[in-house]
Amino acid sequence: MDVNQASLDMHYELGGKIEIISRKKIETREDLSLAYTPGVAEPCRVIAKDYEQSFKLTRRNNLVAVITDGTAVLGLGDIGPAAGMPVMEGKCALFKEFADVDAFPLCIDSKDTDTIVQTIYLISKSFGGINLEDIAAPRCFEIEQRLKELCDIPVFHDDQHGTAIVVAAALINAVKVTGKKMGQLKIVINGAGAAGIAIGKLLIGMNFGNVVLCDVNGVICEGDEGLNPGQEEISHISNKNREHGTLADALKGADVFVGVSRPNLVTKEMVASMNRGIVFAMANPVPEIMPEEAKAGGAVVVGTGRSDYPNQINNVLVFPGIFKGALSVRAKAITEEMKQRAAYAIAGMIRDEELNAENIIPSPLDKRVADVVAQSVAEAAKN
Amino acid sequence: MDVNQASLDMHYELGGKIEIISRKKIETREDLSLAYTPGVAEPCRVIAKDYEQSFKLTRRNNLVAVITDGTAVLGLGDIGPAAGMPVMEGKCALFKEFADVDAFPLCIDSKDTDTIVQTIYLISKSFGGINLEDIAAPRCFEIEQRLKELCDIPVFHDDQHGTAIVVAAALINAVKVTGKKMGQLKIVINGAGAAGIAIGKLLIGMNFGNVVLCDVNGVICEGDEGLNPGQEEISHISNKNREHGTLADALKGADVFVGVSRPNLVTKEMVASMNRGIVFAMANPVPEIMPEEAKAGGAVVVGTGRSDYPNQINNVLVFPGIFKGALSVRAKAITEEMKQRAAYAIAGMIRDEELNAENIIPSPLDKRVADVVAQSVAEAAKN
Repeated sequence: MDVNQASLDMHYELGGKIEIISRKKIETREDLSLAYTPGVAEPCRVIAKDYEQSFKLTRRNNLVAVITDGTAVLGLGDIGPAAGMPVMEGKCALFKEFADVDAFPLCIDSKDTDTIVQTIYLISKSFGGINLEDIAAPRCFEIEQRLKELCDIPVFHDDQHGTAIVVAAALINAVKVTGKKMGQLKIVINGAGAAGIAIGKLLIGMNFGNVVLCDVNGVICEGDEGLNPGQEEISHISNKNREHGTLADALKGADVFVGVSRPNLVTKEMVASMNRGIVFAMANPVPEIMPEEAKAGGAVVVGTGRSDYPNQINNVLVFPGIFKGALSVRAKAITEEMKQRAAYAIAGMIRDEELNAENIIPSPLDKRVADVVAQSVAEAAKN
Repeated sequence: MDVNQASLDMHYELGGKIEIISRKKIETREDLSLAYTPGVAEPCRVIAKDYEQSFKLTRRNNLVAVITDGTAVLGLGDIGPAAGMPVMEGKCALFKEFADVDAFPLCIDSKDTDTIVQTIYLISKSFGGINLEDIAAPRCFEIEQRLKELCDIPVFHDDQHGTAIVVAAALINAVKVTGKKMGQLKIVINGAGAAGIAIGKLLIGMNFGNVVLCDVNGVICEGDEGLNPGQEEISHISNKNREHGTLADALKGADVFVGVSRPNLVTKEMVASMNRGIVFAMANPVPEIMPEEAKAGGAVVVGTGRSDYPNQINNVLVFPGIFKGALSVRAKAITEEMKQRAAYAIAGMIRDEELNAENIIPSPLDKRVADVVAQSVAEAAKN
């Protein structure tokens, strides 16, 4: 039986992958009077007087909303609010299984930026954090930005920052393995949507080197026409040499390829033109170039999103720990420093003696990672 | 230690009364591929093609939103979205404990009817039902009505209909105990807010007799000025004899008093003026008249909202089973017939040989009730 049918059967059998339980048995009059009326009035009064107590007296102390508009779900595209729900529930299950964070899935039935922002803001006081998910670019940039300004809890678009952090983690170790020099890398990112732009910004912020973004029209350069606001913003800090041309042009002499685009766009010859290339081909399920091909072209380190090859670069290593850490210290935002520290924390999970070209990043199933990430985020919050 | 302090301590200790768990352990690559990518794409595709499958493949098959705007929380009034949350979480805990229904609490940070309606509608495809809670009258009427028109899942304002159903259940048995005649009762309801109006409408719909509503200005009569839309609507079907006057005037010769108002408004003398009165004094925690006083005035049956007197009339007997039943048959609305059947089902839990003036309604802690109510609702849905 293939994985699709097996997953469908499992979903019918489970009737939903999450469940909401009571943390208090209610069997006696006393139980009822403490958990509900009349006793419950007292925590209400305390919060009414001191809003911050809501982060201690209600579940928002450990609760994340996983919110989508259903417009960019997996590779399926705009499938609407109800159809996106199995992915959101899956994400919530991962939050609980990997970090003991409670997460609740919500799909918003609108594609209007103002409406989405308002809807999320108006329910934000029910949560401790907001994980945006599978919202199409470029709308996702504005939605996240405006919510960060409005809300007093962390807002984090996982497709952007979760992906960026795990790529940064993998690259930290790939640089070590290859002996390349931080700060002097030429990094070509193919795919200038939510993930590509966020990866670019984080790698630039972490001083990996010169980042060159490509989209379907080739290299993106400052001043290009038709850039969306996210692309325009990064154009000012990327592609320092103002290159033009195709992806193949950009890859000549490059140290790193990061693909968040489509299958089979990169050839063995293109890899061969790189400088002992680090190739992270993360299109799913079929990467931009298969690992065997990349190796044949001379790639020194290869990573993909796939579980059947070494170096699986998967953001399940990131989001559970990010929120666990932020919730633990009542952080009001996920800062750049938190993201950077999280990347180093994930990379640091591979001890030097274990580190090699086939082992630059922990397994997505390694449940020790979330706590390590959480600790790094909590420490960053103190600064 | 008083119940308030004990409840506060419990809330700090628990850090929230609900918790979201995964129904699927995620420990192997296969687990991950079924619950998340790539397998999860298949249930998404199935729902994208056939929307109704979302009620089987995601948790909305058993999931209710408990939603408030925080404007009429318990007796505390307008305490805002964060401060209302302990009550909403308590309600969710009751849903799970009494009916194994998953319920999730949401507070909406707005007092504008249009905004509240839109916000709830836009997230409604994430749920199987919507339980409105502690929203101030008269806004609650319009919010519920408009959501019923917009949503394809049941919308139920518990303060209205949950209360109405449990009062009807108690009254069915009180009528039996007293030998009074259905259809010929004079019923005086004091308090013409959300609960009072809903009780009046349900009792009229169930043909108990002539209902007379009173508010702070006395008896409400068709044509009165200053009625809100809910009061205006019921004025056309209640108070058939077009009475005017005070609550005391209305009670003369009345068979039933239903109080959803304020403490100590009813005197022993007023009860004495009734016709072998059935007195349901449900103001909380101090009723309109204490049971001892009502009995001294000649009341034949007395019920309150209190757990320390017989006949506790509490809507925890209603809402868990109502939604359990509606979800079990994918009902798109809670109909009048469902409400009526639920009332008879609750009343029927007291066997004839157990039925007496001190025992007209099951204990709120009787966990058999939810299933019986659910079954009655599911049967009504078939018609």
